[in-house]
Amino acid sequence: MKTAIFFFYPLILYIVLYILHAYICRMQLKKLLEKKSAEAKRIYLPHISVDCVVFGFHGGMLKVLLTKLKDQELWGLPGGYMLKTENVHEAASRILKERTGAENIYLQEFGTFTSLNRSEGFFKDYPDSLWNKQRFISIGMFALVDYEDVTPITDDFSAACEWKDISDLPPFMMDHREITDKALLTLRKELNYKPIGYNLLPAEFTMPELQRLYETILNKKLNRGNFYRKMISYDILDQFEETRKGGAHRSPNLYCFNVKKYQQALKDGLKEGW
Amino acid sequence: MKTAIFFFYPLILYIVLYILHAYICRMQLKKLLEKKSAEAKRIYLPHISVDCVVFGFHGGMLKVLLTKLKDQELWGLPGGYMLKTENVHEAASRILKERTGAENIYLQEFGTFTSLNRSEGFFKDYPDSLWNKQRFISIGMFALVDYEDVTPITDDFSAACEWKDISDLPPFMMDHREITDKALLTLRKELNYKPIGYNLLPAEFTMPELQRLYETILNKKLNRGNFYRKMISYDILDQFEETRKGGAHRSPNLYCFNVKKYQQALKDGLKEGW
Repeated sequence: MKTAIFFFYPLILYIVLYILHAYICRMQLKKLLEKKSAEAKRIYLPHISVDCVVFGFHGGMLKVLLTKLKDQELWGLPGGYMLKTENVHEAASRILKERTGAENIYLQEFGTFTSLNRSEGFFKDYPDSLWNKQRFISIGMFALVDYEDVTPITDDFSAACEWKDISDLPPFMMDHREITDKALLTLRKELNYKPIGYNLLPAEFTMPELQRLYETILNKKLNRGNFYRKMISYDILDQFEETRKGGAHRSPNLYCFNVKKYQQALKDGLKEGW
Repeated sequence: MKTAIFFFYPLILYIVLYILHAYICRMQLKKLLEKKSAEAKRIYLPHISVDCVVFGFHGGMLKVLLTKLKDQELWGLPGGYMLKTENVHEAASRILKERTGAENIYLQEFGTFTSLNRSEGFFKDYPDSLWNKQRFISIGMFALVDYEDVTPITDDFSAACEWKDISDLPPFMMDHREITDKALLTLRKELNYKPIGYNLLPAEFTMPELQRLYETILNKKLNRGNFYRKMISYDILDQFEETRKGGAHRSPNLYCFNVKKYQQALKDGLKEGW
């Protein structure tokens, strides 16, 4: 009997402490949310939120920046609300600066999320007066960032803020998986008429590296020869004279984007279009 | 002297009556807006509006449906607000049904318009309690309709509701020109990866008619041979065995969309894409 107590005591203590810690975290979050409600009502537009899907490219994989609220097992997108003095770009820039430290991020709107009960139900344990409990129409903005430029920052509400592989996403809160999928679909469609990569790749890259970026976004293998011909026909790349040194195989050619032609193609569309 | 009075009397009477009529119209609109304010606050979400850009194709021209408010010289888009029980598609469908009588319209979101003072300043002569005077974030939805299906309807607030040529647009109120341009730009971009025409053309059409639709959207001439080859390569058309009769020249071939292949291309993108 004594041995059993000796054996179970640390386990029971651990469980009690775990529950206590979870309870305290929950109470802290609740207190914080309620305290912030009054301020939120004063400074933000009601019913409108902004959710950001931040894409980065690293180690040949497309990544997305996700956060986890304290008190939650599910992951979510970095988001926030629109100040009464802001437009949607200013709101998204401010939110991302707070979460990543990065400024002048390339941002693009890709849709609104307006279903009933997408947000109202999430805070059902809280009083109706809670700012977060109202119906929110969310405006989705995606960002393409240089992975190296971003330092994920956890804020007062979140327990974590991390890069996750697009091919291995964790379970999401609310409709954030739908929002992420829509952002990726938009990016995928845009490959047909817009150049991409300037914000995602380093200044110098090889053709296989560029192809890898396209393949991750499209989630399919592309033929190497076709990719090369199509990309050259877009006429947005400059080739360096020197090749990349090192490695067992023939040194691959190095390219960079011709910024002027790239910007022109962003404006007018790619050469093969209508 | 007598002749002068005889001559000017009808003119002066006309001017007085014109001013009186304008004044009465203005008062009526003001009264109506104020009366509807209380109801609007009860049933709609604040700060969120929906503006619809309705495209139709007629006589070889792309048209857009515009309305003119009573008391205004400027034209605007058919729009409205979102009921507390609606999502954005339901709101736009309801608004368009009220304005055109058409149901099951193909609707697509193309952006939000969130600048400060895009709506607040427009009703500056009205009291602050007026529903319409608040800051509105507008969600832009475009619709592609069969011109023949639509009967423009003037409502309580509007003096006119008409089709206008996209190449000859009248002066617009607020930022409605910007919204219209963004819708057209979105349509233009989508030509690169989506089939178009099913909602805009009659069931049977010739290749020059389809080309004309593309040319109006793109606002540029296309090479006939290239257009034909590209369109055939998309593999979304069926050719009829009989040709169109009548006319001095060789009878042109008739085509229709292959609905199954068309729907597939809407889903997966056109064959020439990535």
